Amino acid sequence: MRRSIVNDPEDLVPEALEGLVLSHPQLLDLDAQHRFVTRRQRARGKVGLVSGGGSGHEPLHAGFVGTGMLDVAVAGAVFASPTALQVLEATKAADAGRGVVQIVKNYTGDVLNFRIAGEISGDDAIETEIVLVDDDLATDRDGDGPGRRGTAATVIVEKVCGAAAEEGADLQQVAAVGRRTAAAARTMSLALAAGTHPGDPEPQFTLGHDEVELGVGIHGERAARRVPFTSADGLTDLLLDPLLKDLGLSRGDEVLAIVNDLGSTYPLELQLVARRLHHRLEGAGITVGRWLVGPYVTSLDMHGLSLTLMPLDDELRRLWDAPVRTPALSW
Amino acid sequence: MRRSIVNDPEDLVPEALEGLVLSHPQLLDLDAQHRFVTRRQRARGKVGLVSGGGSGHEPLHAGFVGTGMLDVAVAGAVFASPTALQVLEATKAADAGRGVVQIVKNYTGDVLNFRIAGEISGDDAIETEIVLVDDDLATDRDGDGPGRRGTAATVIVEKVCGAAAEEGADLQQVAAVGRRTAAAARTMSLALAAGTHPGDPEPQFTLGHDEVELGVGIHGERAARRVPFTSADGLTDLLLDPLLKDLGLSRGDEVLAIVNDLGSTYPLELQLVARRLHHRLEGAGITVGRWLVGPYVTSLDMHGLSLTLMPLDDELRRLWDAPVRTPALSW
Repeated sequence: MRRSIVNDPEDLVPEALEGLVLSHPQLLDLDAQHRFVTRRQRARGKVGLVSGGGSGHEPLHAGFVGTGMLDVAVAGAVFASPTALQVLEATKAADAGRGVVQIVKNYTGDVLNFRIAGEISGDDAIETEIVLVDDDLATDRDGDGPGRRGTAATVIVEKVCGAAAEEGADLQQVAAVGRRTAAAARTMSLALAAGTHPGDPEPQFTLGHDEVELGVGIHGERAARRVPFTSADGLTDLLLDPLLKDLGLSRGDEVLAIVNDLGSTYPLELQLVARRLHHRLEGAGITVGRWLVGPYVTSLDMHGLSLTLMPLDDELRRLWDAPVRTPALSW
Repeated sequence: MRRSIVNDPEDLVPEALEGLVLSHPQLLDLDAQHRFVTRRQRARGKVGLVSGGGSGHEPLHAGFVGTGMLDVAVAGAVFASPTALQVLEATKAADAGRGVVQIVKNYTGDVLNFRIAGEISGDDAIETEIVLVDDDLATDRDGDGPGRRGTAATVIVEKVCGAAAEEGADLQQVAAVGRRTAAAARTMSLALAAGTHPGDPEPQFTLGHDEVELGVGIHGERAARRVPFTSADGLTDLLLDPLLKDLGLSRGDEVLAIVNDLGSTYPLELQLVARRLHHRLEGAGITVGRWLVGPYVTSLDMHGLSLTLMPLDDELRRLWDAPVRTPALSW
């Protein structure tokens, strides 16, 4: 069993937000009452960007607040949406007079609370647009369901929208490039071991010695299937093959890749996945033009990883490469 | 038990180095034969900086190769020193005509192999200086032993020496500021659960439900004592109290702090430690002027953390703040 480093578990999220802000005093400010983090130097004359969701996925979202990315990130309890009231206050804080893009991972609670907040903020004459992130290929189904879940592509959407807003794009333009990004990116995830909630004695689920959870969610949602455990190269292929099939990439294409640690994967393990990814795509005539390899969207201490691919074009490459200065992403 | 994402375990380190370099194509180059990583754009006319050691501590050391930090990082097997021959070739690769500073964590094998390599490279007319990092307060003993172990202060020494070399300091000056940094920094570490070697079925050691390993090493070295498990604030105090006593800080002092994840600590947990650290030091009239909070010097997937403090002065603050562009540190 895992023991957590906590004080009163009820205080985990507010205390952690306080710690994040105290350790980034040049970058961040805290609204303790509504549990959101803002840039210390508020942006002026640009479209505002707010995101947020349940905690337990750090550095998402508050780690991406700063110049060139989010203006505000609002935090719910572990794996629980922030309330509509929190999102409303966060949306107001993000507004600098040109409207606010709300970047929302596709989960029922988050979508509902951001939508309510967007409607109410209209009463304050704040224009809002929602950009829904729904990149998780494991939940791609025909029919009227909730649609694909939002996972690590959120980082790309936040970065690209942040750069567009910084360049002076208007509300519709920022929302449009965010939607285009979300529509282009797909992610597959696997777990060798589930994460453990702070305070819980046991992990969210257990797997047999030979089993891998292929298509796991970032809240520990079980997958439709378990597959046999295999080598680093084999595990990479399990993620890559469905992505290649779905994205329909062809020779000469260039992609952005995120090899994302879901919590307690060693860097050495991630680097093996990056290696295999490079060689597989190189063999197919596809270039990985931009990379992130590390913990970006975690699921507590889950041992597992996700692989996100997004085809790059000139606009997306330029927006990705634009300067950024946040706790978790800086160049 | 933990299952690792590996191919042939014998190939883990070379494949992981290859993956690191392939996923940072603008920054890094690989010498596959001698298992070291260099800057892609070799520096000219400056003092060279080489570091290295056993693998399993990523992002240390190869994640700190780049502008403003290391020129070369050389990797041994997991928790094992690189050979003297590897270090020799790495030292040659780091030389740009003004000599090479070797930054070495204080472990017998590393010190021996770097020293041999330094002596042999003298035959090639390469001047070298060793900067020994020995910040681990848990191993501070009187007498003729091996001295304190080197842990997370290595990141500070690599950053400060990197900036000094970039500014044009000569070999003796870079070594001197590195030694001054190493002498000023101290670290304390604790573990709630040991890491697991790739391929091993069981962690390096097990603890009772109420036990914390206070003074653990980054190779899973057991501590002299186990202490009772307690709250996040209490655990922080266990690290902080001996550091404050040893460093003799006083009201008005400013420090750099590293709150370092040893492997599978959640960001939320680290943020609670940062919070407590801020409040304790603020209460004592001491400012944390610079922070790193995250995984910098890990021990596979150990659940635990280390706290490093170093008093800042104008020179060290300037060298810390100087621009850096590496996979793991960038501003």
